[in-house]
Amino acid sequence: MNKLTRRDFSITLGKGLASATLLSGTSLACANTLAQKKSKLGIALVGLGSYSTHQLAPSLQVTDHCYLAGIVTGTKDKETIWKQKYNLNETSIYNYENFDSIADNPDIDIVYVVLPNSMHADFCIRAAKAGKHVICEKPMAVSVEECDAIINACKNAKVKLSVGYRMQSDPYTNEVKKYVKEKTFGEVTFVSSDAAYISRGNPEQWRLNHALSGGGALVNMGVYAIQTSIYGTGQNPIAVSAQEFSTRPDYFKDTDETITAQFEFSSGAVGHMMTSHNANGNRLKVHGDKGWFELNPAHSYGPISGITSKGNDIKFPHKRQQALQMDDFAKHILKGTVNVAPGEMGKRDMIIVEAIYKSIAEGGKKQLLNLGNMGIVS
Amino acid sequence: MNKLTRRDFSITLGKGLASATLLSGTSLACANTLAQKKSKLGIALVGLGSYSTHQLAPSLQVTDHCYLAGIVTGTKDKETIWKQKYNLNETSIYNYENFDSIADNPDIDIVYVVLPNSMHADFCIRAAKAGKHVICEKPMAVSVEECDAIINACKNAKVKLSVGYRMQSDPYTNEVKKYVKEKTFGEVTFVSSDAAYISRGNPEQWRLNHALSGGGALVNMGVYAIQTSIYGTGQNPIAVSAQEFSTRPDYFKDTDETITAQFEFSSGAVGHMMTSHNANGNRLKVHGDKGWFELNPAHSYGPISGITSKGNDIKFPHKRQQALQMDDFAKHILKGTVNVAPGEMGKRDMIIVEAIYKSIAEGGKKQLLNLGNMGIVS
Repeated sequence: MNKLTRRDFSITLGKGLASATLLSGTSLACANTLAQKKSKLGIALVGLGSYSTHQLAPSLQVTDHCYLAGIVTGTKDKETIWKQKYNLNETSIYNYENFDSIADNPDIDIVYVVLPNSMHADFCIRAAKAGKHVICEKPMAVSVEECDAIINACKNAKVKLSVGYRMQSDPYTNEVKKYVKEKTFGEVTFVSSDAAYISRGNPEQWRLNHALSGGGALVNMGVYAIQTSIYGTGQNPIAVSAQEFSTRPDYFKDTDETITAQFEFSSGAVGHMMTSHNANGNRLKVHGDKGWFELNPAHSYGPISGITSKGNDIKFPHKRQQALQMDDFAKHILKGTVNVAPGEMGKRDMIIVEAIYKSIAEGGKKQLLNLGNMGIVS
Repeated sequence: MNKLTRRDFSITLGKGLASATLLSGTSLACANTLAQKKSKLGIALVGLGSYSTHQLAPSLQVTDHCYLAGIVTGTKDKETIWKQKYNLNETSIYNYENFDSIADNPDIDIVYVVLPNSMHADFCIRAAKAGKHVICEKPMAVSVEECDAIINACKNAKVKLSVGYRMQSDPYTNEVKKYVKEKTFGEVTFVSSDAAYISRGNPEQWRLNHALSGGGALVNMGVYAIQTSIYGTGQNPIAVSAQEFSTRPDYFKDTDETITAQFEFSSGAVGHMMTSHNANGNRLKVHGDKGWFELNPAHSYGPISGITSKGNDIKFPHKRQQALQMDDFAKHILKGTVNVAPGEMGKRDMIIVEAIYKSIAEGGKKQLLNLGNMGIVS
């Protein structure tokens, strides 16, 4: 465990220094220069729904390199509750009308956009224009075009961008990547991934409203299965085919209910995934030619649980994934460590999402993917 | 356990008596009349390959209602070895030239055809014409047309027919059927089934020769995944789509290597399956709206192993599946109990196999299935 942590840290640090070297000189933005004087970065949460309330804000109480510095909400009551609970300055509380004035607040280094998916692009771009680093909750946006717009806005503003892929900071994910890289179970031949839950809540929730969500199970849970398929093989897929199943059209009247998809990888490995808002599934199983390993659950808030064909459990001390994630991003800004979930990763996954929807529209026809030049393979 | 066994037996007996009533009178064939005078039925194995040698013959040493009464082989050496090992009569040893004279051997009640798939139809039909009950190893044949020919031959000869689906006699399978029927984990929403192994043997083996096998992973292992998908939901699928993946065309030059398929069921449940000769997989996971259960391994020779979302193991004493299977068929003949793996089940699965190949040929296009009128739903 310690050995792994040290090695991973060295690799990370090595890559980070290389990036820092590349970025030195004129490309360092004001935001970066400012941030580098601080030991901890202030994060403002945009959108105080369940995820901010129950995951992000509590996580920000246990982070080492960042802290809750502000909120953006359209609900007056929440302003009062959050101000009191988290001892926030009056000047660090924003609403959707005065959001852009966040540019003038030096206490806020990072804006974390936790709004419905269709609002990600608008607020991420405005945050970048305000000179703030950006965390965009997953799925990154509702189209590849929007992902590009966010990436470009952050490049132009010379601010850092990451996607809210908490699993990329989880030690279980690094262990999976290590197994695959070191061929602990041989060459990966088949990967199976399920990411699904049964939605029974308010049918008017934004996740079931296409205008707000941009899609159903696929964009919500499916991106986990896409990600596990990729880090379960250590490769981006070269092709995908997909199918959609609908059995509760009254409830899922606007968004996809269940989708299965099959991936081809250049090594010859095959993947299949299932995502649903009307079935359960939370699992990654990777078969190599010398054995297998399985995470089940594979992408809940934790603790994750794993077993291998060698008979051992995969086990790490449980830490809040969101705390690890936000600390990883803060360290990336403060110390130049690697960005474990850059915007290009969110864009890649959206390319796959769009290919899956296209395959479904074309009756399951295989869609070729050209992701090799994206530089993102985990 | 005892309670379950008793109940299952009552159900079985009840159905059996109903069948016996229907069949009473003129429809009882000579073979049946003869068999009913015996307490144990004689089985002849046709084809003494690995499965007969290591599974069926040893199983026939522990069966209660049948015994090894004869062999059919093209290899002189095997005649000698088997005769000695199993104390067989010289008159109960046949080769492929004199096979049809088995009709004159009253010691042989059942002919079990364990030849390469493309030879099933020929030998099953000849066995029926010889007045013998027939067990046809899975997959039943290499086409639906051949399945029909076998079924009709047995009907015309008034002999019983079953397919070598050993899992249909395994207590784990009955437990799965019970969970589904009693909704122990709620309504089934999703079923996932893998049936695969990595083939590394002689590339000239008959399983990799399409003329002998009629197909690759799908007809060999895929039928297990088809069966588990069906008894995991308690329904026949109403549609299927499928994809084929090929990465070792040098080795799998003649037969399919890896296939994934997706099932739609009328209840709204969704299934996906994977079968391969170049990856591992041996699992059934059934998700209901109130929980889940999993068999892993799901269809090896045993012991099968299972867990449920209630935290308990699924556990039964291990018995040779092939012994249970052959005893089930013998009891069906002797006592009129239900035929747990009739020819129509093998035909149904071949209809699904053909639809899967058709979907692949049509680029993954969904194929509608009309299996509702077959009377086989397990």
